[in-house]
Amino acid sequence: MSITTVGLDADDTLWHNETIFRLTQDRFVALLADHADRPMLEARMAETEKRNLRLYGYGIKGFTLSMIETAMELTGGEAPASVVREILAAGREMLAHPVETLPGVDEALAELSESYRLVLITKGDLLDQERKLAASGLGDLFAAIEIVSEKDSGTYDRVFTRHGTGPDQAVMAGNSMKSDVLPALAAGSWAVHIPYFITWAHEVAEAPASHPRYGALNNIDELPAWIRSRC
Amino acid sequence: MSITTVGLDADDTLWHNETIFRLTQDRFVALLADHADRPMLEARMAETEKRNLRLYGYGIKGFTLSMIETAMELTGGEAPASVVREILAAGREMLAHPVETLPGVDEALAELSESYRLVLITKGDLLDQERKLAASGLGDLFAAIEIVSEKDSGTYDRVFTRHGTGPDQAVMAGNSMKSDVLPALAAGSWAVHIPYFITWAHEVAEAPASHPRYGALNNIDELPAWIRSRC
Repeated sequence: MSITTVGLDADDTLWHNETIFRLTQDRFVALLADHADRPMLEARMAETEKRNLRLYGYGIKGFTLSMIETAMELTGGEAPASVVREILAAGREMLAHPVETLPGVDEALAELSESYRLVLITKGDLLDQERKLAASGLGDLFAAIEIVSEKDSGTYDRVFTRHGTGPDQAVMAGNSMKSDVLPALAAGSWAVHIPYFITWAHEVAEAPASHPRYGALNNIDELPAWIRSRC
Repeated sequence: MSITTVGLDADDTLWHNETIFRLTQDRFVALLADHADRPMLEARMAETEKRNLRLYGYGIKGFTLSMIETAMELTGGEAPASVVREILAAGREMLAHPVETLPGVDEALAELSESYRLVLITKGDLLDQERKLAASGLGDLFAAIEIVSEKDSGTYDRVFTRHGTGPDQAVMAGNSMKSDVLPALAAGSWAVHIPYFITWAHEVAEAPASHPRYGALNNIDELPAWIRSRC
Protein backbone atom coordinates (compact mmCIF):
# COMPACT_ATOMS: atom_id res chain seq x y z
CA MET A 1 0.00 0.00 0.00
CA SER A 2 1.75 3.14 -1.15
CA ILE A 3 1.21 6.63 0.23
CA THR A 4 0.62 9.27 -2.45
CA THR A 5 -0.71 12.23 -0.49
CA VAL A 6 0.38 14.04 2.66
CA GLY A 7 -2.12 16.22 4.52
CA LEU A 8 -0.62 18.83 6.83
CA ASP A 9 -2.25 20.88 9.52
CA ALA A 10 -1.13 24.53 9.61
CA ASP A 11 -1.42 26.28 13.01
CA ASP A 12 1.11 24.90 15.51
CA THR A 13 2.24 22.30 12.97
CA LEU A 14 3.86 24.57 10.38
CA TRP A 15 4.01 27.82 12.33
CA HIS A 16 3.38 29.24 15.81
CA ASN A 17 -0.23 30.00 16.63
CA GLU A 18 -1.29 28.96 20.12
CA THR A 19 1.50 31.04 21.66
CA ILE A 20 0.00 34.12 20.00
CA PHE A 21 -3.42 33.30 21.46
CA ARG A 22 -1.81 32.78 24.87
CA LEU A 23 0.01 36.11 24.74
CA THR A 24 -3.25 37.83 23.89
CA GLN A 25 -4.98 35.99 26.70
CA ASP A 26 -2.28 37.23 29.10
CA ARG A 27 -2.97 40.78 27.96
CA PHE A 28 -6.69 40.12 28.48
CA VAL A 29 -6.03 38.90 32.05
CA ALA A 30 -4.03 42.05 32.80
CA LEU A 31 -6.75 44.30 31.35
CA LEU A 32 -9.40 42.80 33.62
CA ALA A 33 -7.23 42.32 36.69
CA ASP A 34 -9.52 44.56 38.77
CA HIS A 35 -12.53 42.39 37.99
CA ALA A 36 -11.35 38.79 37.95
CA ASP A 37 -8.31 36.66 38.68
CA ARG A 38 -6.72 34.51 35.99
CA PRO A 39 -8.44 31.18 36.72
CA MET A 40 -11.87 32.79 36.83
CA LEU A 41 -11.28 34.81 33.69
CA GLU A 42 -9.95 31.82 31.78
CA ALA A 43 -12.87 29.68 32.88
CA ARG A 44 -15.40 32.31 31.80
CA MET A 45 -13.61 32.87 28.51
CA ALA A 46 -13.61 29.11 27.80
CA GLU A 47 -17.37 29.02 28.49
CA THR A 48 -18.01 31.94 26.15
CA GLU A 49 -15.91 30.40 23.38
CA LYS A 50 -17.65 27.06 23.70
CA ARG A 51 -21.09 28.68 23.60
CA ASN A 52 -20.17 30.69 20.49
CA LEU A 53 -18.29 28.00 18.58
CA ARG A 54 -21.37 26.87 16.66
CA LEU A 55 -21.88 30.40 15.32
CA TYR A 56 -18.35 31.80 15.14
CA GLY A 57 -16.35 28.71 14.21
CA TYR A 58 -12.57 28.79 14.70
CA GLY A 59 -10.35 31.81 14.29
CA ILE A 60 -9.22 35.16 15.59
CA LYS A 61 -12.35 37.18 14.81
CA GLY A 62 -14.56 34.88 16.86
CA PHE A 63 -11.94 34.84 19.63
CA THR A 64 -11.96 38.65 19.71
CA LEU A 65 -15.77 38.80 19.88
CA SER A 66 -15.74 36.25 22.71
CA MET A 67 -13.17 38.30 24.65
CA ILE A 68 -15.38 41.39 24.39
CA GLU A 69 -18.43 39.41 25.48
CA THR A 70 -16.57 37.90 28.45
CA ALA A 71 -15.29 41.33 29.51
CA MET A 72 -18.83 42.70 29.44
CA GLU A 73 -20.15 39.83 31.53
CA LEU A 74 -17.39 39.93 34.12
CA THR A 75 -17.64 43.66 34.70
CA GLY A 76 -21.43 43.65 34.86
CA GLY A 77 -21.31 46.01 31.93
CA GLU A 78 -18.91 48.36 33.73
CA ALA A 79 -15.88 47.61 31.54
CA PRO A 80 -14.31 50.92 30.61
CA ALA A 81 -14.31 51.66 26.89
CA SER A 82 -10.53 51.48 26.97
CA VAL A 83 -10.84 47.75 27.69
CA VAL A 84 -12.98 47.16 24.61
CA ARG A 85 -10.62 49.21 22.49
CA GLU A 86 -7.63 47.27 23.80
CA ILE A 87 -9.32 43.97 22.98
CA LEU A 88 -10.12 45.17 19.45
CA ALA A 89 -6.52 46.27 19.00
CA ALA A 90 -5.22 42.92 20.32
CA GLY A 91 -7.40 41.07 17.79
CA ARG A 92 -6.11 43.22 14.92
CA GLU A 93 -2.52 42.65 16.04
CA MET A 94 -3.07 38.89 16.02
CA LEU A 95 -4.38 39.14 12.46
CA ALA A 96 -1.29 41.08 11.41
CA HIS A 97 1.21 38.97 13.37
CA PRO A 98 4.33 37.87 11.46
CA VAL A 99 4.45 34.21 10.52
CA GLU A 100 7.33 32.17 11.88
CA THR A 101 7.67 28.60 10.60
CA LEU A 102 8.60 25.99 13.18
CA PRO A 103 12.06 24.37 13.19
CA GLY A 104 12.50 21.80 10.42
CA VAL A 105 9.32 22.72 8.56
CA ASP A 106 10.86 24.30 5.46
CA GLU A 107 13.25 21.39 4.86
CA ALA A 108 10.71 18.65 5.61
CA LEU A 109 8.10 20.13 3.27
CA ALA A 110 10.61 20.69 0.48
CA GLU A 111 11.65 17.02 0.73
CA LEU A 112 8.09 15.68 0.97
CA SER A 113 6.90 17.75 -1.98
CA GLU A 114 9.32 15.89 -4.26
CA SER A 115 7.62 12.53 -3.70
CA TYR A 116 4.09 13.25 -2.51
CA ARG A 117 1.17 15.52 -3.19
CA LEU A 118 0.95 17.96 -0.24
CA VAL A 119 -2.42 19.25 0.90
CA LEU A 120 -2.82 21.91 3.58
CA ILE A 121 -5.88 21.16 5.74
CA THR A 122 -6.71 23.78 8.33
CA LYS A 123 -9.50 25.44 10.31
CA GLY A 124 -9.71 29.15 11.13
CA ASP A 125 -10.60 32.38 9.36
CA LEU A 126 -10.29 32.06 5.59
CA LEU A 127 -8.42 35.30 4.90
CA ASP A 128 -6.17 34.88 7.93
CA GLN A 129 -5.07 31.38 6.91
CA GLU A 130 -4.42 32.51 3.34
CA ARG A 131 -2.36 35.41 4.64
CA LYS A 132 -0.26 33.16 6.85
CA LEU A 133 0.37 30.66 4.07
CA ALA A 134 1.47 33.46 1.75
CA ALA A 135 3.71 34.95 4.44
CA SER A 136 5.25 31.55 5.25
CA GLY A 137 6.67 31.21 1.74
CA LEU A 138 5.43 27.59 1.67
CA GLY A 139 2.47 28.14 -0.65
CA ASP A 140 4.11 26.78 -3.81
CA LEU A 141 4.87 23.43 -2.18
CA PHE A 142 1.18 22.59 -1.80
CA ALA A 143 -0.91 20.99 -4.54
CA ALA A 144 -4.08 22.10 -2.75
CA ILE A 145 -5.26 24.20 0.18
CA GLU A 146 -8.39 23.25 2.11
CA ILE A 147 -9.60 25.71 4.75
CA VAL A 148 -12.44 23.86 6.44
CA SER A 149 -14.97 24.67 9.14
CA GLU A 150 -14.64 21.27 10.84
CA LYS A 151 -12.14 18.41 10.78
CA ASP A 152 -14.07 15.17 11.04
CA SER A 153 -13.60 11.86 9.24
CA GLY A 154 -15.89 13.03 6.42
CA THR A 155 -13.61 16.01 5.87
CA TYR A 156 -10.52 13.80 5.41
CA ASP A 157 -12.41 11.35 3.21
CA ARG A 158 -13.59 14.18 0.96
CA VAL A 159 -10.30 16.09 0.82
CA PHE A 160 -8.09 13.02 0.17
CA THR A 161 -10.51 11.79 -2.49
CA ARG A 162 -10.64 15.17 -4.21
CA HIS A 163 -6.94 15.99 -4.11
CA GLY A 164 -5.30 12.57 -3.91
CA THR A 165 -5.97 8.89 -4.49
CA GLY A 166 -8.30 8.39 -1.55
CA PRO A 167 -7.88 8.38 2.23
CA ASP A 168 -6.36 4.90 2.15
CA GLN A 169 -3.23 6.21 0.43
CA ALA A 170 -2.91 9.39 2.46
CA VAL A 171 -1.28 10.39 5.72
CA MET A 172 -2.34 13.33 7.88
CA ALA A 173 0.21 15.05 10.12
CA GLY A 174 -0.58 17.60 12.78
CA ASN A 175 -0.34 18.70 16.39
CA SER A 176 -3.94 17.95 17.38
CA MET A 177 -4.84 14.42 18.41
CA LYS A 178 -8.52 15.33 18.25
CA SER A 179 -8.64 17.19 14.93
CA ASP A 180 -5.72 15.81 12.93
CA VAL A 181 -5.06 12.26 14.13
CA LEU A 182 -8.28 10.56 15.28
CA PRO A 183 -10.62 11.63 12.43
CA ALA A 184 -7.96 10.87 9.78
CA LEU A 185 -7.52 7.36 11.20
CA ALA A 186 -11.32 6.99 11.23
CA ALA A 187 -11.36 7.90 7.53
CA GLY A 188 -8.92 5.05 6.85
CA SER A 189 -5.81 7.21 6.46
CA TRP A 190 -2.48 7.05 8.22
CA ALA A 191 -1.97 9.73 10.87
CA VAL A 192 1.05 11.20 12.61
CA HIS A 193 0.96 13.26 15.78
CA ILE A 194 3.64 15.94 16.05
CA PRO A 195 2.97 17.80 19.31
CA TYR A 196 3.35 21.51 19.80
CA PHE A 197 4.57 22.47 23.23
CA ILE A 198 1.16 23.73 24.32
CA THR A 199 -2.27 22.49 23.24
CA TRP A 200 -5.57 24.33 23.22
CA ALA A 201 -7.86 22.68 25.80
CA HIS A 202 -10.53 21.90 23.15
CA GLU A 203 -8.02 19.83 21.16
CA VAL A 204 -6.82 17.44 23.86
CA ALA A 205 -7.56 13.72 23.34
CA GLU A 206 -5.95 10.37 24.13
CA ALA A 207 -3.39 8.85 21.76
CA PRO A 208 -4.57 5.81 19.77
CA ALA A 209 -1.25 4.19 20.68
CA SER A 210 -1.98 0.71 19.33
CA HIS A 211 -3.57 1.73 16.03
CA PRO A 212 -1.57 0.17 13.15
CA ARG A 213 -1.67 3.35 11.09
CA TYR A 214 -0.73 5.76 13.89
CA GLY A 215 2.65 7.35 14.46
CA ALA A 216 4.03 9.82 17.00
CA LEU A 217 7.01 12.02 16.20
CA ASN A 218 8.82 14.70 18.15
CA ASN A 219 9.56 16.90 15.19
CA ILE A 220 8.40 17.32 11.63
CA ASP A 221 11.93 16.62 10.37
CA GLU A 222 11.27 12.94 11.14
CA LEU A 223 8.17 12.83 8.93
CA PRO A 224 9.74 12.04 5.52
CA ALA A 225 11.56 8.96 6.90
CA TRP A 226 8.45 7.81 8.77
CA ILE A 227 6.36 7.93 5.61
CA ARG A 228 9.00 6.16 3.52
CA SER A 229 9.18 3.34 6.07
CA ARG A 230 5.40 2.70 5.67
CA CYS A 231 5.60 1.90 1.98
CA MET B 1 -18.22 27.52 -28.07
CA SER B 2 -20.30 25.57 -25.57
CA ILE B 3 -20.86 26.45 -21.92
CA THR B 4 -20.22 23.58 -19.50
CA THR B 5 -20.03 25.30 -16.14
CA VAL B 6 -22.20 27.84 -14.32
CA GLY B 7 -20.75 29.82 -11.43
CA LEU B 8 -23.25 31.31 -9.03
CA ASP B 9 -22.77 33.95 -6.39
CA ALA B 10 -24.60 33.25 -3.12
CA ASP B 11 -25.51 36.31 -1.02
CA ASP B 12 -28.22 38.41 -2.71
CA THR B 13 -28.14 36.12 -5.74
CA LEU B 14 -29.54 32.93 -4.20
CA TRP B 15 -30.83 34.29 -0.89
CA HIS B 16 -31.35 37.57 0.99
CA ASN B 17 -28.29 39.01 2.67
CA GLU B 18 -27.90 42.76 2.26
CA THR B 19 -31.35 43.35 3.76
CA ILE B 20 -30.18 41.57 6.93
CA PHE B 21 -27.10 43.83 7.11
CA ARG B 22 -29.34 46.87 6.58
CA LEU B 23 -31.75 45.83 9.33
CA THR B 24 -28.81 45.43 11.70
CA GLN B 25 -27.45 48.79 10.64
CA ASP B 26 -30.85 50.35 11.43
CA ARG B 27 -30.68 48.84 14.90
CA PHE B 28 -27.13 50.22 15.23
CA VAL B 29 -28.36 53.72 14.25
CA ALA B 30 -31.09 53.54 16.90
CA LEU B 31 -28.64 52.35 19.56
CA LEU B 32 -26.36 55.34 18.99
CA ALA B 33 -29.04 57.92 18.31
CA ASP B 34 -27.83 60.07 21.25
CA HIS B 35 -24.34 60.26 19.78
CA ALA B 36 -24.70 60.54 16.00
CA ASP B 37 -27.31 60.93 13.32
CA ARG B 38 -27.73 58.33 10.59
CA PRO B 39 -25.58 59.92 7.85
CA MET B 40 -22.69 60.50 10.23
CA LEU B 41 -22.90 57.03 11.73
CA GLU B 42 -23.09 55.36 8.32
CA ALA B 43 -20.13 57.37 7.07
CA ARG B 44 -18.01 56.46 10.10
CA MET B 45 -19.04 52.81 9.88
CA ALA B 46 -18.10 52.73 6.17
CA GLU B 47 -14.68 54.19 7.05
CA THR B 48 -14.11 51.62 9.79
CA GLU B 49 -15.12 48.74 7.51
CA LYS B 50 -12.86 49.95 4.74
CA ARG B 51 -9.92 50.31 7.11
CA ASN B 52 -10.45 46.80 8.51
CA LEU B 53 -11.23 45.00 5.26
CA ARG B 54 -7.62 43.94 4.71
CA LEU B 55 -7.53 42.20 8.10
CA TYR B 56 -11.13 41.08 8.59
CA GLY B 57 -12.14 40.26 5.02
CA TYR B 58 -15.85 39.90 4.25
CA GLY B 59 -18.49 38.57 6.59
CA ILE B 60 -20.58 39.06 9.68
CA LYS B 61 -17.86 38.65 12.32
CA GLY B 62 -15.77 41.46 10.85
CA PHE B 63 -18.91 43.58 10.45
CA THR B 64 -19.72 43.09 14.15
CA LEU B 65 -16.18 44.02 15.22
CA SER B 66 -16.35 47.14 13.06
CA MET B 67 -19.68 48.16 14.62
CA ILE B 68 -18.17 47.90 18.09
CA GLU B 69 -15.13 49.91 17.03
CA THR B 70 -17.28 52.60 15.44
CA ALA B 71 -19.47 52.83 18.55
CA MET B 72 -16.38 53.30 20.71
CA GLU B 73 -15.05 56.04 18.46
CA LEU B 74 -18.31 57.95 18.17
CA THR B 75 -18.99 58.00 21.89
CA GLY B 76 -15.44 58.97 22.81
CA GLY B 77 -15.34 55.73 24.76
CA GLU B 78 -18.54 56.57 26.66
CA ALA B 79 -20.72 53.93 24.99
CA PRO B 80 -22.69 52.18 27.70
CA ALA B 81 -21.95 48.49 28.02
CA SER B 82 -25.51 47.79 26.95
CA VAL B 83 -24.61 49.13 23.50
CA VAL B 84 -21.70 46.71 23.13
CA ARG B 85 -23.88 43.83 24.31
CA GLU B 86 -26.61 44.79 21.86
CA ILE B 87 -24.13 44.86 19.00
CA LEU B 88 -22.77 41.43 19.97
CA ALA B 89 -26.31 40.08 20.12
CA ALA B 90 -27.14 41.60 16.72
CA GLY B 91 -24.09 39.89 15.21
CA ARG B 92 -25.07 36.54 16.65
CA GLU B 93 -28.61 36.94 15.36
CA MET B 94 -27.30 37.62 11.87
CA LEU B 95 -25.26 34.43 12.06
CA ALA B 96 -28.35 32.47 13.08
CA HIS B 97 -30.74 34.17 10.66
CA PRO B 98 -33.02 31.85 8.65
CA VAL B 99 -32.13 31.48 4.98
CA GLU B 100 -34.76 32.49 2.47
CA THR B 101 -34.04 31.71 -1.18
CA LEU B 102 -34.99 34.42 -3.65
CA PRO B 103 -37.94 33.96 -6.05
CA GLY B 104 -37.16 31.59 -8.93
CA VAL B 105 -33.88 30.31 -7.46
CA ASP B 106 -34.95 26.75 -6.63
CA GLU B 107 -36.47 26.13 -10.07
CA ALA B 108 -33.65 27.80 -12.03
CA LEU B 109 -30.93 25.86 -10.22
CA ALA B 110 -32.77 22.55 -10.57
CA GLU B 111 -33.05 23.14 -14.31
CA LEU B 112 -29.45 24.33 -14.75
CA SER B 113 -28.03 21.40 -12.77
CA GLU B 114 -29.42 18.98 -15.38
CA SER B 115 -27.23 20.40 -18.15
CA TYR B 116 -24.31 22.16 -16.48
CA ARG B 117 -21.84 21.79 -13.65
CA LEU B 118 -22.87 24.29 -10.97
CA VAL B 119 -20.20 25.92 -8.81
CA LEU B 120 -21.03 28.18 -5.86
CA ILE B 121 -18.49 31.02 -5.63
CA THR B 122 -18.86 33.30 -2.65
CA LYS B 123 -17.03 35.55 -0.18
CA GLY B 124 -17.79 35.80 3.55
CA ASP B 125 -17.21 33.79 6.71
CA LEU B 126 -16.56 30.13 5.94
CA LEU B 127 -18.83 28.57 8.54
CA ASP B 128 -21.60 31.09 7.90
CA GLN B 129 -21.66 30.41 4.17
CA GLU B 130 -21.67 26.65 4.74
CA ARG B 131 -24.55 27.03 7.18
CA LYS B 132 -26.57 29.08 4.71
CA LEU B 133 -25.98 26.64 1.88
CA ALA B 134 -27.07 23.74 4.08
CA ALA B 135 -30.15 25.65 5.25
CA SER B 136 -31.07 26.62 1.70
CA GLY B 137 -31.51 22.99 0.67
CA LEU B 138 -29.57 23.75 -2.54
CA GLY B 139 -26.32 22.02 -1.55
CA ASP B 140 -26.85 18.83 -3.56
CA LEU B 141 -27.24 20.76 -6.82
CA PHE B 142 -23.67 22.04 -6.71
CA ALA B 143 -20.70 20.08 -8.04
CA ALA B 144 -18.35 22.30 -6.03
CA ILE B 145 -18.36 25.05 -3.41
CA GLU B 146 -15.67 27.71 -3.39
CA ILE B 147 -15.67 30.14 -0.47
CA VAL B 148 -13.01 32.66 -1.41
CA SER B 149 -11.42 35.67 0.26
CA GLU B 150 -11.42 37.77 -2.93
CA LYS B 151 -13.19 37.64 -6.30
CA ASP B 152 -10.75 38.79 -8.95
CA SER B 153 -10.08 37.47 -12.44
CA GLY B 154 -7.46 35.05 -11.06
CA THR B 155 -10.11 33.56 -8.77
CA TYR B 156 -12.47 32.82 -11.68
CA ASP B 157 -9.65 31.48 -13.82
CA ARG B 158 -8.58 29.10 -11.05
CA VAL B 159 -12.06 27.98 -10.01
CA PHE B 160 -13.36 27.37 -13.54
CA THR B 161 -10.18 25.49 -14.43
CA ARG B 162 -10.34 23.33 -11.33
CA HIS B 163 -14.05 22.54 -11.41
CA GLY B 164 -14.93 22.92 -15.07
CA THR B 165 -13.39 23.06 -18.52
CA GLY B 166 -11.78 26.48 -18.15
CA PRO B 167 -13.09 30.03 -17.86
CA ASP B 168 -13.78 30.17 -21.59
CA GLN B 169 -16.61 27.64 -21.25
CA ALA B 170 -18.06 29.04 -18.05
CA VAL B 171 -20.60 31.68 -17.15
CA MET B 172 -20.72 33.55 -13.83
CA ALA B 173 -24.04 34.91 -12.53
CA GLY B 174 -24.44 37.25 -9.61
CA ASN B 175 -25.77 40.52 -8.25
CA SER B 176 -22.45 42.36 -8.03
CA MET B 177 -21.11 44.08 -11.11
CA LYS B 178 -17.78 44.56 -9.37
CA SER B 179 -17.23 41.09 -7.89
CA ASP B 180 -19.25 38.75 -10.12
CA VAL B 181 -19.43 40.32 -13.57
CA LEU B 182 -16.30 42.36 -14.34
CA PRO B 183 -13.61 39.95 -13.05
CA ALA B 184 -15.33 36.95 -14.67
CA LEU B 185 -15.36 38.77 -18.02
CA ALA B 186 -11.70 39.65 -17.47
CA ALA B 187 -10.95 35.94 -16.98
CA GLY B 188 -12.52 35.22 -20.37
CA SER B 189 -15.83 33.85 -19.08
CA TRP B 190 -19.37 34.87 -19.81
CA ALA B 191 -21.05 36.92 -17.08
CA VAL B 192 -24.64 37.74 -16.21
CA HIS B 193 -25.74 40.49 -13.88
CA ILE B 194 -28.91 39.78 -11.89
CA PRO B 195 -29.42 42.79 -9.62
CA TYR B 196 -30.67 42.61 -6.06
CA PHE B 197 -32.87 45.52 -5.10
CA ILE B 198 -30.15 47.11 -2.97
CA THR B 199 -26.37 47.00 -3.45
CA TRP B 200 -23.59 47.38 -0.88
CA ALA B 201 -21.74 50.62 -1.69
CA HIS B 202 -18.41 48.75 -2.08
CA GLU B 203 -19.88 46.61 -4.86
CA VAL B 204 -21.16 49.33 -7.19
CA ALA B 205 -19.57 49.54 -10.66
CA GLU B 206 -20.60 50.50 -14.17
CA ALA B 207 -22.14 47.89 -16.50
CA PRO B 208 -19.90 46.68 -19.35
CA ALA B 209 -22.92 47.10 -21.62
CA SER B 210 -21.19 46.49 -24.95
CA HIS B 211 -19.10 43.47 -23.90
CA PRO B 212 -19.97 40.51 -26.19
CA ARG B 213 -20.05 38.05 -23.28
CA TYR B 214 -22.12 40.19 -20.91
CA GLY B 215 -25.79 39.78 -20.12
CA ALA B 216 -28.23 41.57 -17.81
CA LEU B 217 -31.32 39.83 -16.48
CA ASN B 218 -34.06 40.92 -14.11
CA ASN B 219 -34.50 37.55 -12.45
CA ILE B 220 -32.64 34.30 -12.15
CA ASP B 221 -35.53 32.45 -13.80
CA GLU B 222 -34.34 33.90 -17.11
CA LEU B 223 -30.84 32.43 -16.70
CA PRO B 224 -31.35 28.93 -18.19
CA ALA B 225 -32.76 30.35 -21.45
CA TRP B 226 -30.03 32.99 -21.62
CA ILE B 227 -27.30 30.37 -21.34
CA ARG B 228 -28.96 28.06 -23.92
CA SER B 229 -29.12 30.94 -26.40
CA ARG B 230 -25.31 31.46 -26.16
CA CYS B 231 -24.46 27.99 -27.41
